[in-house]
Amino acid sequence: MSIFETLESEVRSYSRGWPVVFDRAQGSWLYAEDGKAYLDFFAGAGALNYGHNNPALKQALLDYISRDGVTHALDMFTVAKRDFLETLDEVILKPRSLDYKVIFPGPGGANAVEAALKLARKVTGKESVINFTNAFHGMTLGALSVTGNSMKRGGAGIPLVHATPMPYDQYFDGAMPDFLYFERLLEDSGSGLNDPAAVIVESVQGEGGINAARLEWLRGLSELCQRHGILLILDDVQMGCGRTGPFFSFEDAGIKPDIVCLSKSIGGYGLPMALTLIRPDLDVWEPGEHNGTFRGISPAFVTATEALRTYWRDDELEKSVRAKGERVGAALTEIAESHSGVTAKGRGLARGLEFGSGELAGRVCAAAFERGLLMETSGPDGEVAKLLPPLTTSDNEFDQGLQIIRESVEAVLAG
Amino acid sequence: MSIFETLESEVRSYSRGWPVVFDRAQGSWLYAEDGKAYLDFFAGAGALNYGHNNPALKQALLDYISRDGVTHALDMFTVAKRDFLETLDEVILKPRSLDYKVIFPGPGGANAVEAALKLARKVTGKESVINFTNAFHGMTLGALSVTGNSMKRGGAGIPLVHATPMPYDQYFDGAMPDFLYFERLLEDSGSGLNDPAAVIVESVQGEGGINAARLEWLRGLSELCQRHGILLILDDVQMGCGRTGPFFSFEDAGIKPDIVCLSKSIGGYGLPMALTLIRPDLDVWEPGEHNGTFRGISPAFVTATEALRTYWRDDELEKSVRAKGERVGAALTEIAESHSGVTAKGRGLARGLEFGSGELAGRVCAAAFERGLLMETSGPDGEVAKLLPPLTTSDNEFDQGLQIIRESVEAVLAG
Amino acid sequence: MSIFETLESEVRSYSRGWPVVFDRAQGSWLYAEDGKAYLDFFAGAGALNYGHNNPALKQALLDYISRDGVTHALDMFTVAKRDFLETLDEVILKPRSLDYKVIFPGPGGANAVEAALKLARKVTGKESVINFTNAFHGMTLGALSVTGNSMKRGGAGIPLVHATPMPYDQYFDGAMPDFLYFERLLEDSGSGLNDPAAVIVESVQGEGGINAARLEWLRGLSELCQRHGILLILDDVQMGCGRTGPFFSFEDAGIKPDIVCLSKSIGGYGLPMALTLIRPDLDVWEPGEHNGTFRGISPAFVTATEALRTYWRDDELEKSVRAKGERVGAALTEIAESHSGVTAKGRGLARGLEFGSGELAGRVCAAAFERGLLMETSGPDGEVAKLLPPLTTSDNEFDQGLQIIRESVEAVLAG
Amino acid sequence: MSIFETLESEVRSYSRGWPVVFDRAQGSWLYAEDGKAYLDFFAGAGALNYGHNNPALKQALLDYISRDGVTHALDMFTVAKRDFLETLDEVILKPRSLDYKVIFPGPGGANAVEAALKLARKVTGKESVINFTNAFHGMTLGALSVTGNSMKRGGAGIPLVHATPMPYDQYFDGAMPDFLYFERLLEDSGSGLNDPAAVIVESVQGEGGINAARLEWLRGLSELCQRHGILLILDDVQMGCGRTGPFFSFEDAGIKPDIVCLSKSIGGYGLPMALTLIRPDLDVWEPGEHNGTFRGISPAFVTATEALRTYWRDDELEKSVRAKGERVGAALTEIAESHSGVTAKGRGLARGLEFGSGELAGRVCAAAFERGLLMETSGPDGEVAKLLPPLTTSDNEFDQGLQIIRESVEAVLAG
Repeated sequence: MSIFETLESEVRSYSRGWPVVFDRAQGSWLYAEDGKAYLDFFAGAGALNYGHNNPALKQALLDYISRDGVTHALDMFTVAKRDFLETLDEVILKPRSLDYKVIFPGPGGANAVEAALKLARKVTGKESVINFTNAFHGMTLGALSVTGNSMKRGGAGIPLVHATPMPYDQYFDGAMPDFLYFERLLEDSGSGLNDPAAVIVESVQGEGGINAARLEWLRGLSELCQRHGILLILDDVQMGCGRTGPFFSFEDAGIKPDIVCLSKSIGGYGLPMALTLIRPDLDVWEPGEHNGTFRGISPAFVTATEALRTYWRDDELEKSVRAKGERVGAALTEIAESHSGVTAKGRGLARGLEFGSGELAGRVCAAAFERGLLMETSGPDGEVAKLLPPLTTSDNEFDQGLQIIRESVEAVLAG
Repeated sequence: MSIFETLESEVRSYSRGWPVVFDRAQGSWLYAEDGKAYLDFFAGAGALNYGHNNPALKQALLDYISRDGVTHALDMFTVAKRDFLETLDEVILKPRSLDYKVIFPGPGGANAVEAALKLARKVTGKESVINFTNAFHGMTLGALSVTGNSMKRGGAGIPLVHATPMPYDQYFDGAMPDFLYFERLLEDSGSGLNDPAAVIVESVQGEGGINAARLEWLRGLSELCQRHGILLILDDVQMGCGRTGPFFSFEDAGIKPDIVCLSKSIGGYGLPMALTLIRPDLDVWEPGEHNGTFRGISPAFVTATEALRTYWRDDELEKSVRAKGERVGAALTEIAESHSGVTAKGRGLARGLEFGSGELAGRVCAAAFERGLLMETSGPDGEVAKLLPPLTTSDNEFDQGLQIIRESVEAVLAG
Repeated sequence: MSIFETLESEVRSYSRGWPVVFDRAQGSWLYAEDGKAYLDFFAGAGALNYGHNNPALKQALLDYISRDGVTHALDMFTVAKRDFLETLDEVILKPRSLDYKVIFPGPGGANAVEAALKLARKVTGKESVINFTNAFHGMTLGALSVTGNSMKRGGAGIPLVHATPMPYDQYFDGAMPDFLYFERLLEDSGSGLNDPAAVIVESVQGEGGINAARLEWLRGLSELCQRHGILLILDDVQMGCGRTGPFFSFEDAGIKPDIVCLSKSIGGYGLPMALTLIRPDLDVWEPGEHNGTFRGISPAFVTATEALRTYWRDDELEKSVRAKGERVGAALTEIAESHSGVTAKGRGLARGLEFGSGELAGRVCAAAFERGLLMETSGPDGEVAKLLPPLTTSDNEFDQGLQIIRESVEAVLAG
Repeated sequence: MSIFETLESEVRSYSRGWPVVFDRAQGSWLYAEDGKAYLDFFAGAGALNYGHNNPALKQALLDYISRDGVTHALDMFTVAKRDFLETLDEVILKPRSLDYKVIFPGPGGANAVEAALKLARKVTGKESVINFTNAFHGMTLGALSVTGNSMKRGGAGIPLVHATPMPYDQYFDGAMPDFLYFERLLEDSGSGLNDPAAVIVESVQGEGGINAARLEWLRGLSELCQRHGILLILDDVQMGCGRTGPFFSFEDAGIKPDIVCLSKSIGGYGLPMALTLIRPDLDVWEPGEHNGTFRGISPAFVTATEALRTYWRDDELEKSVRAKGERVGAALTEIAESHSGVTAKGRGLARGLEFGSGELAGRVCAAAFERGLLMETSGPDGEVAKLLPPLTTSDNEFDQGLQIIRESVEAVLAG
């Protein structure tokens, strides 16, 4: 392992908890070079909703590469991009009556967020943005300024300004009416709150600790934004592409955000790809006003298109995620109820167990790793063991994984 | 073409000058869906130094995908990453006595720049950065703040501060001694210049108009930084990986920057990948203080490794680029000398023809496109026709391309 | 009046509501050049706590000027400054066991606030500051950034950042426990709140609408600051020097702020003067790190010293202000109770009548002016008629003034 | 002296070099409480152009106070303000064909600068400002951000952004054409310079080291601003009111700045007062958008008016300052020529001797103090002994003072 220790920066993190060298992967399983199999309930932090190296997508990818389809195309027109746009329109947007235009903002989720913030500021002429407690939106300077985590913010090395945090749903466990503070500040011309261009929000905060906003809270937020002429940016980078059941995590709330950020699983196969969807009347960019080298990676378009065709032409995956999510949720609730100080959280297949301390949650994840399961912590102090399994995980695999979690919690809390 | 016009944001740019739908690509050629071939002297803005779908890399990529090698791995240890690190160390760093540690900052060049700036600020405790006139470093907020172009800066929607521009080499055509202003400001405690954490510079400014800094200027800058304890960040995103001849564009100047940013062609095949190389004593990150979903895309590691093995084990490519660069330079000089108001610029295979006006340069590129050549403009007003051909372009292909350029210039300037 | 209209900027404000030319003044009375007398319940926005041209101070001032005492002395040592410091120490600080060092930050309240913020940031190495809804701290850029009023903030022409507003006491009329939000954000490392250097607060918000914080709220804030290592800056520019009864407005709460800002009435006679009082261990300035031309105006020191000697050697003024404040408060409550939608507010001799709309409050003030009383509006929409009468106003004068207010309210609300 | 050491903050500076307690003052003389007389060639850092306690102004001041003229009047109309405006118009503006409107921005020079910057940003909708190397404009946050001195800037505790320094006249001793860099950056849309709202400049930099810009440089700057639509703010706080001869320091250059800042000697007697003069079409303030408690200090208006009447109805003072300035300049040149490494600088009665090191200049000032002369250092390292004597200093007093300087230089440099 010495080349990693010698040559790779200390900034590396996941390899510290999982100190093995992975080689192959398939479905919900990662295989270390010594052949040991690990059940992956982390799934690339939500980038592998369709599992590792999904066979349907793999074949399309191999075909495309084999026939010398264009690989790298900036924002030129390509057959692969056209197929993707047509499929997105037909399979996702039209059936949901979503009238969005599509920006290819660069390869990652932070690019989708940066483009969203830039556009919201350009359209409104305002610079201030409202974010929420325990939000995570990325690590580039614009995205970081709306992220909550203090360690990550500190890495910027300059004051991160222009964003004011508001309490996320249930931040006070019901002790305070929803949006009381936010709306009071907006309505009071003496409040000192800079007039915001936009609100940026996640439907479920993954990095923030698997905090699932209630649907009525999301609706309330959407209505507040409309009342006050504030653009609503829904960051669906981690919770989109079916993680909570429907393709967009906000569908159940019945809202239509002004701007939507997608990345992680949109490419289907784990290849870098991101989208910023915008209300058509917001499309005021000048050509090239936002750009980037890796906006048009055709292999990702190909797997993205194939994923949409395979999984979103009907509602089978959506139903399955809801059902499996309920099942996993029930199992976690049962585990939580068997141990004081443990709480089950989440929605769909974004689930978590809160242990009240980062030390405990970390030990549970370590115990799970020993037993062959990959699971990570999240939350401001890492106090939540987070489950983001592939949506394609089978019932049998869930049984295995949940049993490992059960044993791991037992081992740590009984010790 | 209607789905592009209907669904894709107005921010798209390249597709405006080249309104055809590309399908396949091979070497220096792109093929539209109607079968028409285009000689590509743009090469993904420098992301395709080894040509489109390079056969050696393609085979390694197909093998890796076929055998279900891990695709997406965040910053876990993988066999693919180990191979890449070992090869980078053996083929690139050790032979050049470069003692760097490697950050995988995210998938694109802007991520490499963001990580560099964050680290420089963290290490020094200072927030100010010196950039140069006509610099381009990316479109995320941190990278954009050190970029020169006013249209791109305007897109931020907030004041971009913390950076002070200094004159790039030859900015005054020799009317002012190198670094006179910069060093005077640094030495004068009353100058009002905030004490800088770092200087960020390109050896050759590609987007800025193919401005090639003299080697003695780069040396002077490096010495200035050392005298004043300022970190030197060399953004080699576009000019690295052999574009000017040697692997790093700064090798000929004999300097060792504190931090080096690489992306674009480092992945070899056009897949998103980026590196931030840092002096080992600067590696003060906490684990996870900078991260991102697409830091560990193994297919890119595989093609990156194969590219290093294929092209950098000896100095053949380097020599070839120097030779071809001279040849292209001579041809462009000849063209320039035949037309008043035209100047040839550049180094290695980063070349340009300056026309004094963006309108003229744009018409030359359009004329070239009609004749089957892809070439883009750059510079603050788009006044430079820019050539970034694949380094693997054959002499015969250069002859074809240069002939098209010759004719295009003639057609526009004679008209 | 034509020279004012021709030559003075449109930024002038008070002269719009009181379009007469004043000439002389004495005690609680201002006299226009046509001889008409106006009872002044505005008192220079709180700068004339001892009345206009107070005879005791006037004599000391005339003596000093007559004998050619130094007038302007920057921060040199002078007899006048020594007298002031000795008197401040003996009459104010020592009896209250307040161990402060004294900065002369410049001539006005904004200077006192700017010095406080600069020092808090220097001492802590943090840049962020917490202010409160409807705060007013001044119009220079640093002071403005912690001020709430959106019109005034807008005048900056640049984004005002580095400050986050928290709800002032009673901002939610009891619907939310004190400091719930503030403390939750502080304790949550993922909240996105930048770690604050300081909190800046007024005990009673004058410009914000005569909002008087409860003493237990002030105590709670002080304790919160201590728990979290945040410096507490008490801006007593308008409410200090006896406005609420005791010399410092925070005395009744039993707290000891880390930094106190004084100005307005500290000079006694209306001459520009300001102080920033700091905990001795915070005195980490380098010589000259904060300075200004008008820090040492000896005539102001002379009247300031005389005011302390005349009014603060015993508790007569304090008792009198409390008694008169109660009386005025009772009268205003009676007025409010006679009219629906009107509320009485305030503490000591900082009193207000809230009318729910700026239009109504403005008409009441206009009606009062017609009847010979000066009274201004405050609050985010100017919805509060504000009373800041000289503390030396006699019972008879209060009777006259309150009768005018009674009639004016009647005239406006009956109409 | 103990109360100063015990109670006054360490930020005090002048009292460190002149550790005596001053009591009285008259004309060019300050008297310590032990009766010792000091010839004052510092004059309140330029706030006492008409000398200490000038008898003509003193009588007007005593009369006004005695008759209970309004002292403190915010921005109400007063007889004293009307007299001042009429006199300013008649004696200063009209004879010079200067069509300015008058803002009373607050009591000090920093307020005049803050108002100027706010207005320039509001008018133009741009936030960036160009300042010059070694500029000094004040210590509040807005004014500090355009000040050069790094120690003073460091006191802000937050990054000071929004300003970019350009080289002041002669910054490169003629090695670089005037405005070459500045204009190149403005004309190059890729330069990275944020489009500036305004340029702020001093005709002679006092704190910066008595750097007197050539008249043709000031004219060049004014023309550049007009060419590029940038507002020109002339900070005449220290150099106005006759310091260089004419009332405004920019008159000899024949330019008409868009905005002029006045303070220090405008009040005449050393009382706090400031003006921001603006082109009438820039008067776009809303009422109260910039305000402050001490905008209308009538005693200062009275002495200001009297000073204009006494000294500016004819050109006697102007001629006298020019003549005395020449004489002082000649004497300093003679001193400089007798000692290697010493240079004479300045214009009018703003004069300096540069010693190349702050240590030497400080020792010369200390030697002068021992001999009964007050003189301060300036420049980034305090390397310039600065002379700002009252303009009313007699020839005989100049002889005494220059003889002391001669001896002090001799004593230090011979030692």
